[in-house]
Amino acid sequence: MRVDFHTHIIPEDFPDFTEKFGGERWPTMNRTCACGANIMVAGKVFREVTDQVWSPEKRIQDMDREGVDIQVLSPIPVTFSYWADTEPAMLMSKIQNDFIAETVQKYPDRFIGLGTVPLQDVDAAIREMDRCINELGLKGIEIGSNVNGANLDDPRLIPFFEMCEKWRVPLFIHPWETMGRDRLPRHNFMYTIGMPSETALAAASLVNSGLMEKFPNLQVCFAHGGGSFPYILPRLDKGWEVWPHLRLTTHPPSYYAKNFYFDSLVYDPLNIKYLIDRFGADKIVVGSDYPFLLREIPPGEVIDKTPDLSEKDRKLILGENALRFLNCEK
Amino acid sequence: MRVDFHTHIIPEDFPDFTEKFGGERWPTMNRTCACGANIMVAGKVFREVTDQVWSPEKRIQDMDREGVDIQVLSPIPVTFSYWADTEPAMLMSKIQNDFIAETVQKYPDRFIGLGTVPLQDVDAAIREMDRCINELGLKGIEIGSNVNGANLDDPRLIPFFEMCEKWRVPLFIHPWETMGRDRLPRHNFMYTIGMPSETALAAASLVNSGLMEKFPNLQVCFAHGGGSFPYILPRLDKGWEVWPHLRLTTHPPSYYAKNFYFDSLVYDPLNIKYLIDRFGADKIVVGSDYPFLLREIPPGEVIDKTPDLSEKDRKLILGENALRFLNCEK
Repeated sequence: MRVDFHTHIIPEDFPDFTEKFGGERWPTMNRTCACGANIMVAGKVFREVTDQVWSPEKRIQDMDREGVDIQVLSPIPVTFSYWADTEPAMLMSKIQNDFIAETVQKYPDRFIGLGTVPLQDVDAAIREMDRCINELGLKGIEIGSNVNGANLDDPRLIPFFEMCEKWRVPLFIHPWETMGRDRLPRHNFMYTIGMPSETALAAASLVNSGLMEKFPNLQVCFAHGGGSFPYILPRLDKGWEVWPHLRLTTHPPSYYAKNFYFDSLVYDPLNIKYLIDRFGADKIVVGSDYPFLLREIPPGEVIDKTPDLSEKDRKLILGENALRFLNCEK
Repeated sequence: MRVDFHTHIIPEDFPDFTEKFGGERWPTMNRTCACGANIMVAGKVFREVTDQVWSPEKRIQDMDREGVDIQVLSPIPVTFSYWADTEPAMLMSKIQNDFIAETVQKYPDRFIGLGTVPLQDVDAAIREMDRCINELGLKGIEIGSNVNGANLDDPRLIPFFEMCEKWRVPLFIHPWETMGRDRLPRHNFMYTIGMPSETALAAASLVNSGLMEKFPNLQVCFAHGGGSFPYILPRLDKGWEVWPHLRLTTHPPSYYAKNFYFDSLVYDPLNIKYLIDRFGADKIVVGSDYPFLLREIPPGEVIDKTPDLSEKDRKLILGENALRFLNCEK
C-alpha cells in the first residue's frame, strides 16, 4: 500500500474572480491546448500545468504506472487567497473543496481529500472546515505557513487550532509567500531556500509560542520534510536553554516537535535517515509534490533507496502512517 | 590539539564613531564594571559582554580549563559596518584588525587571527586584506553573508573573491543582517531561524552563481555548520536538475559544495554525523562561538559525543582541518 500524501489539484476551470470581485491576485486557468493550461496571476503565467493537475483519470494512469495506490489531494497554495476579503476568498475555497470532494466521490478507493479555508477570517475558516469534514467527507485541511505575513502563532489563529484539535482535523502545512523573498530574486531560490526556511519558521512558531503545548493532540504534517526545521531544531533547543526569559513552554522545542509528521520530499536517503533518527519512522509519510516540476518520480523513491530500513518501518512510511494520520485506518 | 575556529573578539575600547563621523549604527563599548561592558548600537544595548571578549589572558584561562589549545579570533559581525562610507568603515576594520594582530603577537602559540574588510568598497577591501595578510600576519578574512542586502553573488564582489583565490586567503563566512528579519520579531528567531537560513543563502549564492566554478581553489568555511545549507542541498540539486534554463554551472550544486568547510556549532551529534556523511570528516572544524550565549561549552563537545568516529577523523575535526584550512600546518 503506497499513499502519496503530498499532491496538488485544481479544477479545470472556474470563474474569473478579478472580473467579479476586483483585485489582481486571483488565479485563473488559461487553456493552452487539449491537455495543458497556464495558471495565470495578475496577467502573467504563474505556472504551466498539464491535465494531470485537474484530471482524475490522468492521475490514476500515472498512479498505476508509478505504483501509487492512493493520492491525498490538496489545493495549490496560489488558491489560498488569504489576502482577499472573506466573501470571495470563501467562494474560492468552496470551489476548490467541492471539486476535491467530487473527485474523491468519483474514485473513493484512489483519492483522499484535504480542503482549504479562508484563514484571514477565523470564524469563516472554522465554518468551512466544518463543511469540509462533516459535509464533504474531506479528511483534513491544508493551510499556508503564514497569513498575510503573520506567523502561525498569531493570537487570532488560536480558535482555529483549538477547533482542529477538538474535531480531530489533521493539518497539512505548506509553505507559501516565503520569508526573505526580497533577497531571493535569482536562481529560483524562493523555492529552494525560501520554502524550507519558511517551513522552519511555521513549525518553530507552533512550538516556541506554546501552541503545541496548549493543543497537544493537534495533528500537524509539514511539506518538504519540514524544510530546514528538523535540522535546525538543536539550535532552537539551545536558544530555549540560554534565553530562559523568552521561554513560553515547559520543555525545549524538540519535546513538542516529536508530535509532528513530515512528508518525505527531501530527495536524499541521508535526509530520510536523519528524519527517522530524530523523529522515528512512524512520523514520516510519502510526499511527491505531484504533478509539479520539483516532484519525486516515482513517489517514495527516496524511501525505496534508503538503506537498512526494516520491512515494518518501510510499510509505515509508504502508507500506514498517512492513513493513521488522516484517521483513515481500516 | 584542539583548535576552536569560531570565536569572537573586540577591543576593550575604541573611539565613538557616531560622534566622529555621524551615522547611528556604529557600535561602541560601554563599560559597566571591571570585567563587563555593553556593546551599544544606536543608544541601545546590543549585547552584554564580559572581559572574555577583549582580554586574551581571560580567554587563555578559559581555554586551559576547557582544553582548547588554539583559538581562531574573528571580529564580531556588528563591527562589519558595510553600511557606512568607506573611510570610517576602513578605520573600524583597521582598529579591529590591529587589535587582533596585537593579541596574536602577544600569544602566538594560543591565537590565530582573522581580519575584516570594508566589503562595500571592493578596492578598499582588497587593500585591507593585503595589509591583514602581508603586514599583520592574519591568516584569513571573516566576511558577512551579504553586503547591504546584496547576496554574495553580486558581480561587484567578483574581484574580491578573485584576489582571495589568488592570494590563498581563506574566508570565514558569518551570517548577519539575516533574510526575512521582518518575519522574525519574536522568540529571538533572528538567531535560530534567520541565521541558518541566511547562511544557506550565502552558500547557495556562491554555488549557484558559478562563483565556485570560476574560483575552484577559493577556501570557504561557514559558521554554525553552514546553517541549513547542508540539509537543503538535495533540494538545490533538484532545482538544478529541473530548471535547466536557470543553470549557470556545469555540475549540480553539491558538486561545488564539496569544497566548503563547516564549523561544528550544530549542538547535536546527529547533525555532525550528517555533515560527515555528506562532506567527509576532512571538512569540519570545531567552532564554539565563544564567548557568546549560544556557545558550546566545552568547545568541540558535540564531536566528543559523536559515536563511531575513528581516532583519525576525530583528530582531523578537532584541530588538523582548521590548521590545514588556514595554511598553518606545521
